[in-house]
Amino acid sequence: MSSSPATGTLSYEQAGVNYDLIDPLKVAAQRAAKATATNLGAHGFGEVEASRGESAYVVDVGPFYLASIVECLGSKTLVADEMAKLTGRSYYDGIAQDTIAMAVNDLITVGATPLVVQAYWAAGGSDWFGDAQRAQALVAGWKRACDACGVAWGGGETPALAGIVESGRIDLAASCTGIVNPKSRLSLGDKLAAGDAIVLLASSGIHANGLSLARKLVERLPDGYRTEVAPGLSYGDALLAPTVLYSPVTEALAKAGIVPHYCANITGHGWRKLLRHPGAFSYRIHAVPPVTPVLKFIQQHAQQDDQEAYGTLNMGAGFALFVAAGDAQRTVEVARAQGVEALVAGVVEAGAKKLRIEPLGVEFGGDELQLR
Amino acid sequence: MSSSPATGTLSYEQAGVNYDLIDPLKVAAQRAAKATATNLGAHGFGEVEASRGESAYVVDVGPFYLASIVECLGSKTLVADEMAKLTGRSYYDGIAQDTIAMAVNDLITVGATPLVVQAYWAAGGSDWFGDAQRAQALVAGWKRACDACGVAWGGGETPALAGIVESGRIDLAASCTGIVNPKSRLSLGDKLAAGDAIVLLASSGIHANGLSLARKLVERLPDGYRTEVAPGLSYGDALLAPTVLYSPVTEALAKAGIVPHYCANITGHGWRKLLRHPGAFSYRIHAVPPVTPVLKFIQQHAQQDDQEAYGTLNMGAGFALFVAAGDAQRTVEVARAQGVEALVAGVVEAGAKKLRIEPLGVEFGGDELQLR
Repeated sequence: MSSSPATGTLSYEQAGVNYDLIDPLKVAAQRAAKATATNLGAHGFGEVEASRGESAYVVDVGPFYLASIVECLGSKTLVADEMAKLTGRSYYDGIAQDTIAMAVNDLITVGATPLVVQAYWAAGGSDWFGDAQRAQALVAGWKRACDACGVAWGGGETPALAGIVESGRIDLAASCTGIVNPKSRLSLGDKLAAGDAIVLLASSGIHANGLSLARKLVERLPDGYRTEVAPGLSYGDALLAPTVLYSPVTEALAKAGIVPHYCANITGHGWRKLLRHPGAFSYRIHAVPPVTPVLKFIQQHAQQDDQEAYGTLNMGAGFALFVAAGDAQRTVEVARAQGVEALVAGVVEAGAKKLRIEPLGVEFGGDELQLR
Repeated sequence: MSSSPATGTLSYEQAGVNYDLIDPLKVAAQRAAKATATNLGAHGFGEVEASRGESAYVVDVGPFYLASIVECLGSKTLVADEMAKLTGRSYYDGIAQDTIAMAVNDLITVGATPLVVQAYWAAGGSDWFGDAQRAQALVAGWKRACDACGVAWGGGETPALAGIVESGRIDLAASCTGIVNPKSRLSLGDKLAAGDAIVLLASSGIHANGLSLARKLVERLPDGYRTEVAPGLSYGDALLAPTVLYSPVTEALAKAGIVPHYCANITGHGWRKLLRHPGAFSYRIHAVPPVTPVLKFIQQHAQQDDQEAYGTLNMGAGFALFVAAGDAQRTVEVARAQGVEALVAGVVEAGAKKLRIEPLGVEFGGDELQLR
């Protein structure tokens, strides 16, 4: 509830995103979008209604489900641009991975295998592409992330949008299409049940959500992006750690015969995303993963308590898998075999919708995440 | 080859897009993207190689082909924003249709039925969405265009990107996913043959390509966007005529048993897009459609000869269908039944790659369209 820009708690709203202005549009758009589902009937298909309001949209096309998504990177490029000025490096190989992660990590929540990624690179002018080092880093990073996810890079758009995108900047997004095959892999709807375990997959840092806050915080740091968050690790470099790509884990789980009952990509709204499923469940967390140095640093310097920090940032957990209790330990092992640290963190219980993070004494009510 | 900003020919390059800077990146990206196709093998699928460099990317997923695309609207919103200031109207219902047309009209070129559209609305700040009239127009127009194309609006992104997108502006794009079903509808590769007819579908105006030029031209007009291009029709209003959605035509053709051998969406590069197919063919045009007033006006005031105008703008033809000669007249009738004017305009011939527009004495060589 404070106040001066130089001290006191820095909340996400203070960092410049006003959801009160965006939300009415979102609600109108969601209502209009829902009404178009009947159009699929003319083609002999139908939507999977449970995917409305979820991270990817799913259509039943007969032999399998089709899933699709478009996702924006957000403002992480602004950090990359500042850091490039300070260090002379291009960070766009990592930025490419971040952008693909935004799309792929959402698409896999429904149980889909990502197949095709399209690139959306809208620059503020043709000259953005004239910096060959940066452009080649973006291309190389994009390809590497596609290879890591086993997707084909189908193509994309590289418009020069002077007057719309700011000069010297680029608006990055990715669309992704995949299939849920076999259909039993669908991880939406009523599979989630009391007694299920919550397995959290480690994040690599801030990923690509909370960057407005992180950039606002720089104004408070005497050394700016050069401030060390750990010995030898600058705030800027730490922020730019690329987002973990989780599709190798979900694909390995499928091969191991483990079908998550539900998944949540922990992005905006931090751990409140664990409340994403529409059902009435309590989520009890008994163990929390280690918090990466950059997130600990942000929490400390933004003077956020755990309630604010865990309700905004990923705090070490980038993706949540809700699995049958008997699959929990094996889920952890499958993730580790893919190089992703994991933890059996909690349990799903019947009861009023809420999330309790017991080790921290933090609780979120079911009304603290409004996505539908 | 001229010169002063106030008079003389105004070419597309002079209007501010420098392809020399973008093209090296495009080539590097296309090469890297092509190398990712093998990733599909691990899923038991493979790309349709002929779709590389085409308007949509196609993957063989067994029972049918999967097609996907992401497309940017471009700078047409800048005209809408200026006109809104002059007239008090919001033009974003039409702008929504334009954005969807960019994606859908590309997707259908491969023979796909569009199924799902995702919205990408990246604003320069939360306050963009605070203009309720404009926001509701965008939502209503988006829904109407989805209904017209028989697609489901799956969802999308509405980020507020202060510092990346200019304040007060919005970067609009759409992704579209569809299927080619039955697979015999695929209109790529070696179906195109000498003797095929070229059917041109009418455009409604400038559509969404050439807007940089059109905006540049305003500087030469004493009455700016209010200048009349026809009695009672202002330049601004004429420019903002929404792009025709051609998927009702291609779907009706499929129902009528007509499978185009190839399709070209006539966007950037104008009629040079008729040279898009990689094969060695000559395209002989014996009839041209009427030119809409706004395009005639642009050609005249930008002092472009037919070579420049037809090589840049759609000049009355928004989409080209290459069909068996015996299907040509019926194709025209099917299009008209969908409310889209059409014309049997020419023929495909064996020979060196070129396009001859005989009524105008204009010719383009095969080297005048470099897309691959």
